[in-house]
Order: sequence, then C-alpha cells, then structure tokens
Amino acid sequence: MTAEATPVTHTGALTILDPDQTDLLRELDGVFAGWGRAAGAREILPPPMYPVADLEKFDVYTNFPHLALVAAPLELDGGPDAPADGRFAPAALREARLGLPHATCFGAYLFHEGVELEHDTLITLVNRCFRNEDHYVPLRRLASFQMREIVALGSYAHTQRVLADFTERITAFGAALGLRLDRVAATDPFFENDGARALMSRLSPVKYEFQAGDLAIASVNTHRNFFGERCRIRLAGEPGHAYTSCVAFGLERWLAVLLDTHGSAPEAHAAVRDAAASVR
Amino acid sequence: MTAEATPVTHTGALTILDPDQTDLLRELDGVFAGWGRAAGAREILPPPMYPVADLEKFDVYTNFPHLALVAAPLELDGGPDAPADGRFAPAALREARLGLPHATCFGAYLFHEGVELEHDTLITLVNRCFRNEDHYVPLRRLASFQMREIVALGSYAHTQRVLADFTERITAFGAALGLRLDRVAATDPFFENDGARALMSRLSPVKYEFQAGDLAIASVNTHRNFFGERCRIRLAGEPGHAYTSCVAFGLERWLAVLLDTHGSAPEAHAAVRDAAASVR
Repeated sequence: MTAEATPVTHTGALTILDPDQTDLLRELDGVFAGWGRAAGAREILPPPMYPVADLEKFDVYTNFPHLALVAAPLELDGGPDAPADGRFAPAALREARLGLPHATCFGAYLFHEGVELEHDTLITLVNRCFRNEDHYVPLRRLASFQMREIVALGSYAHTQRVLADFTERITAFGAALGLRLDRVAATDPFFENDGARALMSRLSPVKYEFQAGDLAIASVNTHRNFFGERCRIRLAGEPGHAYTSCVAFGLERWLAVLLDTHGSAPEAHAAVRDAAASVR
Repeated sequence: MTAEATPVTHTGALTILDPDQTDLLRELDGVFAGWGRAAGAREILPPPMYPVADLEKFDVYTNFPHLALVAAPLELDGGPDAPADGRFAPAALREARLGLPHATCFGAYLFHEGVELEHDTLITLVNRCFRNEDHYVPLRRLASFQMREIVALGSYAHTQRVLADFTERITAFGAALGLRLDRVAATDPFFENDGARALMSRLSPVKYEFQAGDLAIASVNTHRNFFGERCRIRLAGEPGHAYTSCVAFGLERWLAVLLDTHGSAPEAHAAVRDAAASVR
C-alpha cells in the first residue's frame, strides 16, 4: 500500500475506508458483537436489500419516504440509455420491487416472521444501511453506512433488561475511550402515525440516543410489540405478539468521533482495545 | 435462538443466513482474507453503492446493462405514492445517481484513482454485490450476495504471480474439502466491446473459473491495464498505466456447495477449519 493512497470520498456521500480505518471499524464491530455474544446472542446475516413488500410491513414508505432508496433495473427496450451526466432519468428505469433498508434490525424481524419463540431470544446482526439525505458529511452522514445491532425478542421484561445492560456497557465504554456521551431521549418516528403508540411514547420515551457532541453514535430502542405484530412473532406460553427492542451502533460515526478524539486510526485502535478490555 | 427459526427466503432472490450458516460464511471469508493478508495484502472497506458516474468508468452500463440495479429516491411531490402490489412504478421514482455494484473489485480501483503506486500492491476487500437476474436460486443465484476479492495492482508480472499463487491455494483447499473443482477458461465480458482486448482474450484467456458442478465459486481474472487506465493508476518508474488482476470468491456459493457436500453447516464448518489448517 503506497502512502499516497488516501481514501476516495465520492461526493462526501460514500467513503472507501483505508486500511487503518478498516481495521479500526472491524475492531469496534467485534467489540459490540462480542458484547452481544457474551449476553447470549447468536449472529444472523441479512441481505442489504429486501422486497419492497417486506419493508412496507414496517411503514417505512409512510413514515420515512424522504429517506427511502429503492433498487430498480434499467429499461432495456429500445436499447439501454447511457446515463446522462451521471444520472438515469425515471423513464430509463423499470419498476422497483426491491428496497434498500435504512436500519439493520428489520432483518431480525423478517428472520423470525411467523415464528413462535421457545424462549426469550437475543440475536446480533450487522448490515449496510442506506439513506437518502438532503446533505452528506464524510463518515457522519453517509448515503450508505454500517449499523451493528443487538436485538431482543420475547417478553417485555427481557427487552428492557437488555437495554438496561447495554446502556451501562455503552456508558462505561464511552468513558473508557475518553468520549463525553450524553444520553438523550429522542422520538421514534416509527410510531408517529400510530395514535396509541405515539401517546405511549410521549408518556415514556422509547428511544435514547448516545450523543457525542451533536452526533448520535448509538441508541437503545423500545418497540413494544410493533415489529412482533407486523411479523406475527409470538412467545411460547404468552398471549399476543412478542415484544422487541434493539441496541444500535453506527460504526462509521464511532470512527469519526474516535478519529477526532485520538488523532489517528492506529491510536484510536489501541484505545478501543484497551477500553474493550476494561468493559465486559 | 429457537429451533423453529429457519432462514427466510425472500422470493429466492434474497436470503437471511441463520446462525450456523453465518458462522460458516464468516469462517470462509476469514480463510480467504487470511490468504490475502499472508500474501501481503491490507484490507480496505468499500461502500455497497457508488455514484453512477464512477461505475460508468468501467463500462458497466454498456457491457452489463441487464445485470444493473440503480438506487433511486422516491418522488415526493404531490405526496409519496404508496407501493402498489409491492412495486414502485418508474413515475414514482426520482432520477438515479447511485448505482449498486455487481462486483467487489471496483472499490479497489476507485480507492487508488489518480494514485502513483510506490511498488506492487496487494489489497483485499469484501462487499455486497447486486445483480438483476432473470431467475434466482437460493444461495446460488441471489439478487445480493457477498464477494471477497484479493486485488493485485502494479506490474504485469506481479498480477500474474498472484493469480498463479491463488490458483494453487484454491485447488488445494477445494481438494482438502472434498470438492471437485474444475478450472475452466471463461470469457470476460468487460473486454467484449474492445477490439484489441477481445482479440488478446481469445489468444490468451483472461478469466478462469473454479466450478463445482455447474457453479462457479471462485475466479482468477487478468484485467491487463483496463482498470489502471480508467482510474489513471500508475506504477512508479514504469511507463503507462498499472496492470491489475483479481481473485474472487462468491461466499454464498461456497456455502451452497459445502452444505451439499457436508450435509450441515456445523459439519461444513469443521471441514473448513481442517482444510484451512492444511493450506497456507
């Protein structure tokens, strides 16, 4: 690798991580996944694209239409159009049946669709997420980024215990890394269009973000039985649909904050190793 | 994890890997990446989406228009359309400026765009790849899959040495796993529309696939200076553009073949560990 090879930033929206950044991101992801495994999670591996009909189950096209990106093939009748000025006009596209997810945990609910869980369940997964934003900032607001999640499914008590445990771990890890993380209640637009859930959300926050400055780098999220209902997931011996919650880590955002705090990827990498050893 | 949770196959085009399959795929990827690192490669991490203008540099919309998927935001003027029957019509989309790659190695050339390499270089990267196919087969022909690559950049001799070394490793690894792998010369459509290169390709094959039955699970590819030219990559002290080659592994296809051969993911996993220990 030559020293001159610096990461290419494509319009700021997309970044190719260089070797030191790549090693750091993988180390971070390994730490978060390791916490999941230590808490009993097994890992599943979702695709970065789903049928539109599946994402529609989660109201994404109603609640987040501005963030949505969908995947379309090219219209080939009459010969394919070449892109003009780096763009394909809608008329050059065929209908889009596949959607790009804007969060990782959808895969966890689709994996368990129609399943009756034998007991409280914990899984972990990482995925590429996609967001159509009105502006992009390298590493901080990307059109595609990586989100590691730990997802709890089963009883309400289980989903809350997992969030409490991970809140403690995230807080301790942030402190060990010299990050000032503020835990901030946030509104979850998943419930905006749902009167009863939106009311509950105002009474008791369902989302807390961990913010470094103005950047949310992790969150803990209570979904009550929203996803359980949409994917018909049940818990053996319990009435109604399973409860779910998730813990999410925006990996490139951790990178951005750690690079700011520690100066370089190798220094940040050493700090992550040390901090991880002190937090279990 | 409940025993009833089986992987969800979304129209056969997309699969969520279950925990045992996930562990197996990660082990395999670790073996291939490990070979790369042992040969001197460092890892970079590309996004699963690029500006259309970047992919256009590689003639993908001329040579592979049928495989292409592009990412479009929704047209929100007049309120977003809800998907009808799981589809968005072209008129419900905005113009597409972002493309989904159908191979991993594009990221390696874009990362080195405009760079003068100090010496022969080896890198490794894995990415999600996307292909619009006329039919899909679970694990074997997916709309999105994972491809690990080892990419050589620099002198022609370097690019050929890497392919020879990896051809040996792949053959030995296949044998150790009990796979019958046929090494088959294939045509590379990258050069189809280029008279001089197409002629060279007929005189001396530029792509060999490793086929298990009728399924290509790995390939070694000579690009001559096609990508070096398109991305203005040079090698210090050498005239003209750098040469490149790549070794590619289709991870879900390895999974499919190993599940067939060894019966279950845990058994295949043990076989991969044993085989990897015998091949360096």
